[in-house]
Amino acid sequence: MSTIFFKQKPRIVGWYSVAGKKESEGPLGQTFSRVVRDEYFGEKTHEGAERKFFVTAIQGAIQSAEIQPDIVFAGDLLNQIVSSSFAMREIGLPYVGVYGACSTMALSLLVAATFVDSGAVHHAVAAAGSHFATAERQYRTPLEFGNQRPPSSQWTVTGAGATFLSDDKQKSHIAVTCGTIGRVVDFGVKDVNNMGAAMAPAAADTLARHFENTKTKPSDYDAIFSGDLGRIGEEALRDLLKDKGYDLGENYYDCGKLIYSAKQKVDMGGSGCGCSAVTLNGFILDKFKKGEYHKILFMATGALLSPTTTFQGESTPGIANAVVIEEVEA
Amino acid sequence: MSTIFFKQKPRIVGWYSVAGKKESEGPLGQTFSRVVRDEYFGEKTHEGAERKFFVTAIQGAIQSAEIQPDIVFAGDLLNQIVSSSFAMREIGLPYVGVYGACSTMALSLLVAATFVDSGAVHHAVAAAGSHFATAERQYRTPLEFGNQRPPSSQWTVTGAGATFLSDDKQKSHIAVTCGTIGRVVDFGVKDVNNMGAAMAPAAADTLARHFENTKTKPSDYDAIFSGDLGRIGEEALRDLLKDKGYDLGENYYDCGKLIYSAKQKVDMGGSGCGCSAVTLNGFILDKFKKGEYHKILFMATGALLSPTTTFQGESTPGIANAVVIEEVEA
Repeated sequence: MSTIFFKQKPRIVGWYSVAGKKESEGPLGQTFSRVVRDEYFGEKTHEGAERKFFVTAIQGAIQSAEIQPDIVFAGDLLNQIVSSSFAMREIGLPYVGVYGACSTMALSLLVAATFVDSGAVHHAVAAAGSHFATAERQYRTPLEFGNQRPPSSQWTVTGAGATFLSDDKQKSHIAVTCGTIGRVVDFGVKDVNNMGAAMAPAAADTLARHFENTKTKPSDYDAIFSGDLGRIGEEALRDLLKDKGYDLGENYYDCGKLIYSAKQKVDMGGSGCGCSAVTLNGFILDKFKKGEYHKILFMATGALLSPTTTFQGESTPGIANAVVIEEVEA
Repeated sequence: MSTIFFKQKPRIVGWYSVAGKKESEGPLGQTFSRVVRDEYFGEKTHEGAERKFFVTAIQGAIQSAEIQPDIVFAGDLLNQIVSSSFAMREIGLPYVGVYGACSTMALSLLVAATFVDSGAVHHAVAAAGSHFATAERQYRTPLEFGNQRPPSSQWTVTGAGATFLSDDKQKSHIAVTCGTIGRVVDFGVKDVNNMGAAMAPAAADTLARHFENTKTKPSDYDAIFSGDLGRIGEEALRDLLKDKGYDLGENYYDCGKLIYSAKQKVDMGGSGCGCSAVTLNGFILDKFKKGEYHKILFMATGALLSPTTTFQGESTPGIANAVVIEEVEA
């Protein structure tokens, strides 16, 4: 049993997303709390910029909640998750670094919810983010190299998102009620430009366990989101779940497909920790505020590779973490 | 308030450590559950070996507890914590990746204890590990480069340790009762060969908050352990804590100093996630079994750098996480 049911139903009392120029030009452009058009965000390096996106998102979520948090849970795609750690140098609060690759937004939310639910802390921030230029250098080749992108590639989202969770039941009717922790699943995909195929089996594993443990089916949710499976991964997930007896139907969306338009030349769609982080902490949570969503399943997937494992001929294991967000009584 | 008090007092019901040849020749040589003399552990790469150390430690802890865990919390020093993630591909259980650099053993224990305490899971494994050869390549230069080691360097421990936590109060009288989560502290140290100096301020910050929040003093513990401050860091910590009004006294030990003898040419002592992980899951927990320890404070420190941040001229932020392990009634 790897589904956690939160007895206290930690409330989402604030959220914030900050995204880059390309993201602002996509279909979700109007849903971000803030847009930063300068890819350097006034810093000397792209890594410095990524860090500043984190600081901005975490501080934004804190201001949105109007509460001082006890702790921050965060992670990112860079070596030794330095964007999160260096951001926390400025924030100055107790900090737990988590890593689930592109599943980090769902993972940090699950861990934060467990801490709030247990009474260990009252108020917690969960955050994740990424930057196109740092991810290209980290996982593939530096931008200066000018490599050609194969059609199966995805475009790493520049942006960060943060969600504020609290045990104060009066502050919000939006709650994290349960979630399913991922297992590492590896179907032997070795193409680092086809992350969707590497992550879809993990997504299917987590979703099937989630539906079984919670005794729910896809149509019980107003919407089901995956983080960044992209077009190939999304189709693979639908097929794999059909084999397990679940039809994702019409209310399943991939944040990687939502965030850019077809005109933006992003191949299979958006990716990176930031993709699901800015979609959750903008588009999705805004829909709850407007009363358009009452219960959703937010699942983010991650590809657990490093450049070293790829050079050494290893395949890419995937993981997926899923969280249920729903309206509850006060 | 960043000290968490565990109401259910999760029990430590099993543990396991596996260490390398050099570690087996040090003063703690007899305390490891298993020694592997081959630095490749039968694998083709040092990275493959590190992964196998993880699998061995996690499986060992599970066998020692004689219970099937619900979840594993683990992290390591490599890019994208691939040793943990790839190990979990073989273990097949739900997995939360955590990253606190060399503080990861204390961090994974704190997060696992919170999950067990909250009732989210019944049984959890917390693990951490490192490998001398992979860490040198990752953070400094590959071994083939043959660089000279400055006298302030530390020697990364080859090994992994895992602790099994359970809500079954009948299985053990050794419990995790509280812990203090670290904040990121940066005193501006830029020398990547002097991690002790970079981590000591974070250690002092965590310990002072811990003593204050728990209303305890150093002499209330049978022993206080730091993870891998080494000789320079240990002295800096004693001085910094004196300024805050706390005298660490005679019962403070650094795992980095305990693990190797002066004859082993390791400069300031041992380091790496594995250093505190194998010391905890051998020497320290064995002392509880023998009745020699009744209450200890286990604090591990981490240097939150990456090669990229160092190349970009950044200083090294530190973090420290502390956990109280003590005998409790059944």
